[in-house]
Amino acid sequence: MTAFVARLVVKPEKRGEFERLQTELRLLTHAHEPETPVYELIQSREDENTYLCIATFTSQDAFDLHMGTDFHDRLAPAILDCLAEDMDLGFYNIIGEAKRQP
Amino acid sequence: MTAFVARLVVKPEKRGEFERLQTELRLLTHAHEPETPVYELIQSREDENTYLCIATFTSQDAFDLHMGTDFHDRLAPAILDCLAEDMDLGFYNIIGEAKRQP
Repeated sequence: MTAFVARLVVKPEKRGEFERLQTELRLLTHAHEPETPVYELIQSREDENTYLCIATFTSQDAFDLHMGTDFHDRLAPAILDCLAEDMDLGFYNIIGEAKRQP
Repeated sequence: MTAFVARLVVKPEKRGEFERLQTELRLLTHAHEPETPVYELIQSREDENTYLCIATFTSQDAFDLHMGTDFHDRLAPAILDCLAEDMDLGFYNIIGEAKRQP
């Protein structure tokens, strides 16, 4: 089961646009991807231009589905356009069940 | 709204115990803390001794509650005992609603 942490350093003047686009992607992910248990955007308290996007997927298929959605294709280029430097993307293994037990 | 990312470098010989203890803490957190929407443990694919614990809280009170639970008090010392170096703890702001909309 796959997780990723993307470190995103945003151009100061693009922070608002970035947060808007990334939040749209987050809400669409939550609404349409039950096999993506976690998809969060958090902002560093030490550097307001640095964000982490954290996601977990119940399987590789769930990750592939996320990367292939129409809304990801639509939003990802505009999000990357807001960055001051290349995205730093790390992949991780989830320890334990991917989904939160009810 | 508060989020944290804890970077935990574990002694190789303690990885099993660490995962067991941290998973117990994760499951208890999920079971008893509805205002902790995210509490995940992920393992780096580049260094199997490095883990991230990622958590989000709907409020400072929710964070304080987590830190003050009996199970956190019971498990945290044993978890820290598994570490090869000091925990690196970063605090973040959550962008958007803390909780996933139903």
